[in-house]
Amino acid sequence: MADLAPTTAEPPVDPTNWTCPAPLRDQPVVVMGHGGGGALSAELVRDVFAAAYGNPVLDALGDCAVLRLGGARLAFSTDSYVVRPLFFPGGSLGDLAVNGTVNDLAMSGARPAYLSAAFVLEEGVELTVVDRVARAMGEAAKAAGVTVATGDTKVVEAGHGDGVYVTTAGVGLIPEGVDIRPQRARPGDAVIVSGPIGLHGVAVMSVREGLEFGVEIASDTAPLADLVAAMLAVTPDIHVLRDPTRGGLAASLNEIARASGTGVRLRERAVPVPEAVANACGFLGLDPLYVANEGRLVAFVPPEQAEAVLEAMRAHPQGGGAALIGECVADHPGTVVVETGLGGTRVVDLPLGEQLPRIC
Amino acid sequence: MADLAPTTAEPPVDPTNWTCPAPLRDQPVVVMGHGGGGALSAELVRDVFAAAYGNPVLDALGDCAVLRLGGARLAFSTDSYVVRPLFFPGGSLGDLAVNGTVNDLAMSGARPAYLSAAFVLEEGVELTVVDRVARAMGEAAKAAGVTVATGDTKVVEAGHGDGVYVTTAGVGLIPEGVDIRPQRARPGDAVIVSGPIGLHGVAVMSVREGLEFGVEIASDTAPLADLVAAMLAVTPDIHVLRDPTRGGLAASLNEIARASGTGVRLRERAVPVPEAVANACGFLGLDPLYVANEGRLVAFVPPEQAEAVLEAMRAHPQGGGAALIGECVADHPGTVVVETGLGGTRVVDLPLGEQLPRIC
Repeated sequence: MADLAPTTAEPPVDPTNWTCPAPLRDQPVVVMGHGGGGALSAELVRDVFAAAYGNPVLDALGDCAVLRLGGARLAFSTDSYVVRPLFFPGGSLGDLAVNGTVNDLAMSGARPAYLSAAFVLEEGVELTVVDRVARAMGEAAKAAGVTVATGDTKVVEAGHGDGVYVTTAGVGLIPEGVDIRPQRARPGDAVIVSGPIGLHGVAVMSVREGLEFGVEIASDTAPLADLVAAMLAVTPDIHVLRDPTRGGLAASLNEIARASGTGVRLRERAVPVPEAVANACGFLGLDPLYVANEGRLVAFVPPEQAEAVLEAMRAHPQGGGAALIGECVADHPGTVVVETGLGGTRVVDLPLGEQLPRIC
Repeated sequence: MADLAPTTAEPPVDPTNWTCPAPLRDQPVVVMGHGGGGALSAELVRDVFAAAYGNPVLDALGDCAVLRLGGARLAFSTDSYVVRPLFFPGGSLGDLAVNGTVNDLAMSGARPAYLSAAFVLEEGVELTVVDRVARAMGEAAKAAGVTVATGDTKVVEAGHGDGVYVTTAGVGLIPEGVDIRPQRARPGDAVIVSGPIGLHGVAVMSVREGLEFGVEIASDTAPLADLVAAMLAVTPDIHVLRDPTRGGLAASLNEIARASGTGVRLRERAVPVPEAVANACGFLGLDPLYVANEGRLVAFVPPEQAEAVLEAMRAHPQGGGAALIGECVADHPGTVVVETGLGGTRVVDLPLGEQLPRIC
């Protein structure tokens, strides 16, 4: 695994005439890092969005909201997809737009059922490009077993978009008896990752930067709801699930540690990092723990269930590389540490922004 | 009422190397009219999106999808909001983002309950601007009685956005026994509009073009779910509801006529067009029937219920200007005609694009 390089901070901006209620690091304008899923994103949510329309459902800050409506227990989630380029090894914006929202729903234990799809198209983009994105969405929806039930299209002038942006929202049904959320992490929980990390981020970066690393690295984009169902068949008592997209495993684990008031202790050697990802990260000065994934989940599971859950995961196509990478601890609440190969420990902090903008 | 000026068509583009399965008027690229809610939008949906992931729910093409999930009968809808400028007389992008999706849900008879909010922010936009949009959303959500339950933020580089785009999706509960959809229009139905038309479009245009028309014209943006509930309290047997946004009343009525295989006959003098809107449209060469509204609905109601429904609407703050404007007929199926003040009739066709891009 590559060294834990510090995350690149956004350059500070002069705070002139700043009247926003939020400190937001005294920056009066939006910077790329506000979309990175790290500390800047969290501040924007807390100081602007939650201040404007916060409520207990929103404030739970899971990957999706958990609602009761007409007697049904529903998961409800949304994400905008602005990845560039639109097509990359292993997938496209269309795949992410379906799998990303399907996975957010699945992280509550829900069976995803219906998606919405709203397009913001840039004037002048070729219709064949829109068509390719739409077809990728159709194939991904079929693979994930969801129905695209409703949609919208807007067009903006050239120079006010970037070809195709897609926002999907989704609804799914949460089985009774399942209660999966970051607040439920408990000291002693086994921390499991479903497979090798870093593939999506490195795949997008390699095509964006025109880099080659000897072997082609393909995005891991995949729907995870069926894997989650296989895990829940072992035990409904899974405590936490999270898909480590923007900000990578580091961001997800920090969010869980903070939400639950526990600590997380990882074993560096146990984290599955493909050699090609490690080499690319070493070359680029990135840390695989902070690199985005689009077809992986991290699970917090009661220790007595860990072996059976791992076995079920490994028997599933999306969990073949599942690994026990650490445990939840009572020490250092809110903090994630990693035991290095040399026997030391190091703090893995919440990234400020994202090493690589527009990754999803 | 102003004359029915022809809608401006998009300039044709040379169809070079065009391999998309759709004819799409032989244009190989996206033009502004694809986002206008008229014929070009409908072709894009039919030939690209429905071809890629069509299914019976999506193909019903209502303002929202009607789903069954866990025993509940749900409405589910989404819209992206790209209006410019962000703030205009009577409202802002934030108001539209809430009211627009609330109203789409309400057009199925649903009680809107939860919204999602996904932001695509442009690098460099002032955080005070984001804050103002978010606060407008918070106030609109409170007024509409809905909860913003989940969200997302992405940031794109300067020159790839336009300050703030917001995509909302929403879910609501449809009362049992209510079946409101365009296919249910029947010859004999009374056609009712809930108030004066054209205010939103003219308000946005006036501030965008720096025009003044003597009096300030404010957008009609408002949530309509409570008005719909008042109408359903008179009779659950309302056949069709639609909020005439992009493409105006003309687009909504054409969609209903085509979906139901009926015709629509309007009386020009009965359509409530404020004098200021008529003057502005006359000056600009626009037709009020094609101008967007954001706080109006059109209803198709069995004739024997029309008077009682109108009375209930007029007693409601959002329906004070409700008027019977025509009826559904068996003649000329799929076609909307208007009886002019001079006793003639004229066809009101589906617009090709939208007279005014980025209106919502």
